[in-house]
Amino acid sequence: MSGRLYGIGVGPGDPELMTLKAVRILADVPVVAYPAPDEGESSARAIAASFIAAGREEIPIRVPMRPGPEPAAIYDRAAAAIAHHLDAGRDVAVLCEGDPFFYGSFAYLHDRLASRFPCSVVPGVSSLTACAAAGGRPLVRRDQTLAILPATLSDPELKRRLAVFDAAAIVKVGRHLARLLPLLAHLGLTGRGTYVAHATRGDERVLPLAECEGIEAPYFSMILIGEERAP
Amino acid sequence: MSGRLYGIGVGPGDPELMTLKAVRILADVPVVAYPAPDEGESSARAIAASFIAAGREEIPIRVPMRPGPEPAAIYDRAAAAIAHHLDAGRDVAVLCEGDPFFYGSFAYLHDRLASRFPCSVVPGVSSLTACAAAGGRPLVRRDQTLAILPATLSDPELKRRLAVFDAAAIVKVGRHLARLLPLLAHLGLTGRGTYVAHATRGDERVLPLAECEGIEAPYFSMILIGEERAP
Repeated sequence: MSGRLYGIGVGPGDPELMTLKAVRILADVPVVAYPAPDEGESSARAIAASFIAAGREEIPIRVPMRPGPEPAAIYDRAAAAIAHHLDAGRDVAVLCEGDPFFYGSFAYLHDRLASRFPCSVVPGVSSLTACAAAGGRPLVRRDQTLAILPATLSDPELKRRLAVFDAAAIVKVGRHLARLLPLLAHLGLTGRGTYVAHATRGDERVLPLAECEGIEAPYFSMILIGEERAP
Repeated sequence: MSGRLYGIGVGPGDPELMTLKAVRILADVPVVAYPAPDEGESSARAIAASFIAAGREEIPIRVPMRPGPEPAAIYDRAAAAIAHHLDAGRDVAVLCEGDPFFYGSFAYLHDRLASRFPCSVVPGVSSLTACAAAGGRPLVRRDQTLAILPATLSDPELKRRLAVFDAAAIVKVGRHLARLLPLLAHLGLTGRGTYVAHATRGDERVLPLAECEGIEAPYFSMILIGEERAP
């Protein structure tokens, strides 16, 4: 019998925001895989570190941290390494920052493995709700609509979508911040905006959008555009 | 010194999807509040039940389970009852299904209390990612956009927004299902749709949208429209 592939959401950064289920599965599985930068520590592994038992087989999936298409060859190789364990009957847990299916690179492993092996996804606290909690304002209530928009979209693409939503989250802000600030000001949204970087981590930063001129935003930062009218 | 107000996300239904932080805070606080129907058990309390110690003060917030505007008087009264404990220096945890700031009624208490008392929101696993996990398909990856749309929107309102997004989640489907099915068929989205009800609960139900004709959808059900092209 083949092993089971687990996509495990480890949450946004604070290890205490891991779920009981994630912790339980990590205590059981013999093999743990996770995305990692070219060099240095994996953020997903760092979040889960205290719950990975000694002596587990570990598979770091080294993905270059630059923009651009994900190199398919990296996921082909990682999927093969994981499939090797699954074929041998060993369960494999893939650690995913936030939630596995919300902008997670787990999608690329899922594409390659889920039709061949039993697979379970354990949802995690996503950066979306972690940033809202850090920002201290509800994302959406009642009949409000919410747009999730990557910052890589062009100005016209962002405008068109922001125009028809009550609230929005612009994700993966990073180097796009300097372009986004005047765009959001032009749309009259600055006053409704909150900038949140590295929510729930030690270096969490929360700022009203009006105070973000000149700051350097990391890749894992988000701009939340809240409901129009304070209730 | 006044007590602290906690908005605690207890996740989508499976108690194992509660976070370690939620469990820790529940073990500590002397007062626990939660939304509850007119009669009968609170779903939020049921999820967290095994983590609420005996002898805690409990404040059920009875909200009529019918569509329409939330009765402000109910939240005024609940906020007053909670403020009474906070004023006396007792921390109060408000249990919220899913995440407190993602369509949660906690927003109404937050409106009334967060400016007067220290407040922390503990994010939880939202129905959004729980439904995606149950559905077995990534919500979004890379530069994709995601629209979150309440089913109460009119057909033209839904159409306009679905037209400009890669993926979508139509939330709180309930009695709107019969209207949504032909609309989504007309837009050519049936094949990309998955219906998920009560994700992670005992009565979880997952169906391809094409097989949903005639079923009765509960309030807590969702239609996910996945990315266009299987990768």
